[in-house]
Amino acid sequence: MNGAESLVRTLVRSGIDTSFTNPGTSEMHFVAALDRIGGMRCVLGLFEGVVTGMADGYARMMDRPAATLLHLGPGFGNGIANLHNARKAHSGIVNIVGDHATYHVRHNAPLTADIEGLARPVSHWIRTSPSARDVARDGARAVQAARTGAGRIATLILPADTAWNEAGSDDPAPVPVPRRTGAAADAIRTAAGALASGENTLIHMTGRALREDALRLAGQIRSKTGCRLSCMTANARWQRGAGRAYVERIQYPVDVALRQLHDVRHIILVGTDAPVAFFAYPDRPSVLVPEGCRVHRLADINHDHLAVLQSLVDELDAHDAPELENRDPPDLATGALTTEAIARALGHHMPENAILVDESVTSGRGFMPFTRNAAPHDWLALTGGSIGYGLPCATGAALACPDRKVICTEGDGSAMYTIQALWTQAREGCDVVTILFNNRSYAILKGELANVGAGNPGRTALDMLDLDRPDLDWCQLAGSMGVPATRATTAEEFNGQMARAVAEPGPRLIEVVL
Amino acid sequence: MNGAESLVRTLVRSGIDTSFTNPGTSEMHFVAALDRIGGMRCVLGLFEGVVTGMADGYARMMDRPAATLLHLGPGFGNGIANLHNARKAHSGIVNIVGDHATYHVRHNAPLTADIEGLARPVSHWIRTSPSARDVARDGARAVQAARTGAGRIATLILPADTAWNEAGSDDPAPVPVPRRTGAAADAIRTAAGALASGENTLIHMTGRALREDALRLAGQIRSKTGCRLSCMTANARWQRGAGRAYVERIQYPVDVALRQLHDVRHIILVGTDAPVAFFAYPDRPSVLVPEGCRVHRLADINHDHLAVLQSLVDELDAHDAPELENRDPPDLATGALTTEAIARALGHHMPENAILVDESVTSGRGFMPFTRNAAPHDWLALTGGSIGYGLPCATGAALACPDRKVICTEGDGSAMYTIQALWTQAREGCDVVTILFNNRSYAILKGELANVGAGNPGRTALDMLDLDRPDLDWCQLAGSMGVPATRATTAEEFNGQMARAVAEPGPRLIEVVL
Repeated sequence: MNGAESLVRTLVRSGIDTSFTNPGTSEMHFVAALDRIGGMRCVLGLFEGVVTGMADGYARMMDRPAATLLHLGPGFGNGIANLHNARKAHSGIVNIVGDHATYHVRHNAPLTADIEGLARPVSHWIRTSPSARDVARDGARAVQAARTGAGRIATLILPADTAWNEAGSDDPAPVPVPRRTGAAADAIRTAAGALASGENTLIHMTGRALREDALRLAGQIRSKTGCRLSCMTANARWQRGAGRAYVERIQYPVDVALRQLHDVRHIILVGTDAPVAFFAYPDRPSVLVPEGCRVHRLADINHDHLAVLQSLVDELDAHDAPELENRDPPDLATGALTTEAIARALGHHMPENAILVDESVTSGRGFMPFTRNAAPHDWLALTGGSIGYGLPCATGAALACPDRKVICTEGDGSAMYTIQALWTQAREGCDVVTILFNNRSYAILKGELANVGAGNPGRTALDMLDLDRPDLDWCQLAGSMGVPATRATTAEEFNGQMARAVAEPGPRLIEVVL
Repeated sequence: MNGAESLVRTLVRSGIDTSFTNPGTSEMHFVAALDRIGGMRCVLGLFEGVVTGMADGYARMMDRPAATLLHLGPGFGNGIANLHNARKAHSGIVNIVGDHATYHVRHNAPLTADIEGLARPVSHWIRTSPSARDVARDGARAVQAARTGAGRIATLILPADTAWNEAGSDDPAPVPVPRRTGAAADAIRTAAGALASGENTLIHMTGRALREDALRLAGQIRSKTGCRLSCMTANARWQRGAGRAYVERIQYPVDVALRQLHDVRHIILVGTDAPVAFFAYPDRPSVLVPEGCRVHRLADINHDHLAVLQSLVDELDAHDAPELENRDPPDLATGALTTEAIARALGHHMPENAILVDESVTSGRGFMPFTRNAAPHDWLALTGGSIGYGLPCATGAALACPDRKVICTEGDGSAMYTIQALWTQAREGCDVVTILFNNRSYAILKGELANVGAGNPGRTALDMLDLDRPDLDWCQLAGSMGVPATRATTAEEFNGQMARAVAEPGPRLIEVVL
């Protein structure tokens, strides 16, 4: 058994059964090993940002890591932006990165690069295997690292000779993962004290706390104490809709967020930090906590949020049934195809247990109220702020959950970063409908230009924010990669196309002309 | 004047008149400053790999840097692969990377990342400006760094508040660039001694040595001494064709390269290292220098190659006229559309001073003999081995040289990494014809799977190497971004489409079905 075979075997034994790949020469033994060992599903992406974004989407839905297979430093480089997003989502990922043979690196061949240096800013765990005999053990440790806490980015660099040399018969067992723990008793008591104070208190959450079971507990606490439940704009996975406890989203625009938070006296943090602005703006604060408000760190992202919230429920004796959202989807709109018309169709047509992957940036800001009483669904958002996560994340989520409809709300500017994901959707028959908002601009930046006080833009500046000249033809673009597409210019057209897209499986794209 | 304005002003004064951009919120002041200051042409790319690849192509043709404008760590991350290629091409580039305001970084907002850490593996020079008053001086130093030697990657990180705060009236002058020097006298004498020995001697070159004037000097040395002139497979810019001295290209396949070099006794290096294999393979050497051959380092990449070769000419008294290539373009082929038929059409139709950007990977290996006696042209190749450089590099070259035809020979697998470049070609009206080799696979990897001894691939492995299911429709794909495209399936069709593409300006794509 060579090193590559021993690694595939260990990964499979450690519970990794899916690999998102964009391999090159230095990964050929790994690719060949996939057929010999078995048990690993492989999905090809035509660009590494698609590969890492798919791994992120997969991890968010499966609560366990997939592997990626990437080609040396530059291949890893192409995956960095979506690894950044995955890191901020606390998604577990095991990156396998091929390198030159150990004895070849010093010759500075064209593809030689500092892979560990590139990996460091986005990885929690990094190791370069020194020999074929170490590869399996290193692989088991990489999986352990990726499964630790809420989920981590582990990067294992595999020089080509460690893949093709003899690995020996050593067959290391999977490395156990440390259990996630509840919060300390005094943190529970402090939080309970704030909640019982009668003052305006927020339980501010992310991570595992935003799943149905944990939200139910949080809802019980709200029923008992009158607190508010909140989360930031972007969360890895938030279970919303009918039957779930309502959570207020702190908005992206700083002035709106400041108004939402202005009278809060206590913020209890579960899995997240105190609310901060996405960007700094002149004459606006970075930290959105109002003066005099006390911040209580109840649990970080790696705690067992279900246990933490259960302890808090017990401490407060908050055992009455919580208030949960009704099922009351909005009516459809007619006439002009506004963002409200789209939001209504989304809330109206969204099927049971849909996965909504949102990268609509400006166009999607008004979607929340219209989906609040829709069928129960999972809402995935852009946790790291690096656009180009949507299409790959939707693809990975669809591969993780083939029995669920994935709806990807996507801006035109964002879509272009990782547009190659559509090809993988077509190849794998992913059940994804992409709603593509074609406003022919980086619309968010037009607002930001004003927000940062940069003044009235001139022609040169506007040319950097507009995506016209030429207009992108989204139906042609999707069609070229095997994804059927339609264009909607009225609410009626969109409603009809959305109804069909929900009813029929397989990938499709609806271009919304705004 | 704010920091952003002072930076734009200094860049322009330092000779930077072109900026390739993909900005975000933290770069809005820089974008706004472009209109206020003037003198900077801005070109938008829809993905940062396009931006850095354009800057590479521009630098290769202009021998001076452009700026890029990138959005925080993940935006820089997307540009890394083509910065890696640019670094290996010794292209000068000034990266301007926006960051959070200095006081906002510590709050770990979603886009916060270790930008310096990401920049280090691909940058020769890095600095984060601490305040608005430092920005102009740092900008001048960044340009100096990028223009030092053959060309370097300089990365200047600009926290948002250093862009919007008052910069003061200080207006630093451009920082002078150290002159490039010739080789030491004893290195010249050693090289001359080897050349005069009568033994099989190679002058192995890259960088500035591959331009017409330097090649003429090398040709004089060859005429006098009977030496051979050689270069590696991939060079930043190689002036070839009629009227230039012939240079032998050491081939990518290791066994072919070993045969080319087996009887060489001396290798004189001008701007490059001794020949090494692109990848290591089991039972093949990394270094391709035969036993007993002596390697003489005459000049590194940063020396003045013209001066070095002139000194060698003088030392050898090699003043007779060199042998230069005849103009004798190949005849066109008929019938099947083979790679030879394409090579013939390329050599036949290539106009005077065309710029050929080659990323055809497997399909283009046979192009050299058929273009050797074509009209004089510049041949740009994939210096860093990270595929996805071709379309952006061709775009940047076309923007640098609007009066020259750019021909981009591009593999289908490679094209998909940075396909967004076609949109910029359409927007800017770039005179680029892309010849797209559609073989529906990563063809090179099928060969490499055998070369590394990984055995016969199974179905899973082949699925990672084939780009079918679905086939990409290249005419639709190009058309969706505003680039007209045609499909060729016979030699006659291709010849006609190539003739029209050469005759008419503007971007177009020819899909070659192989």
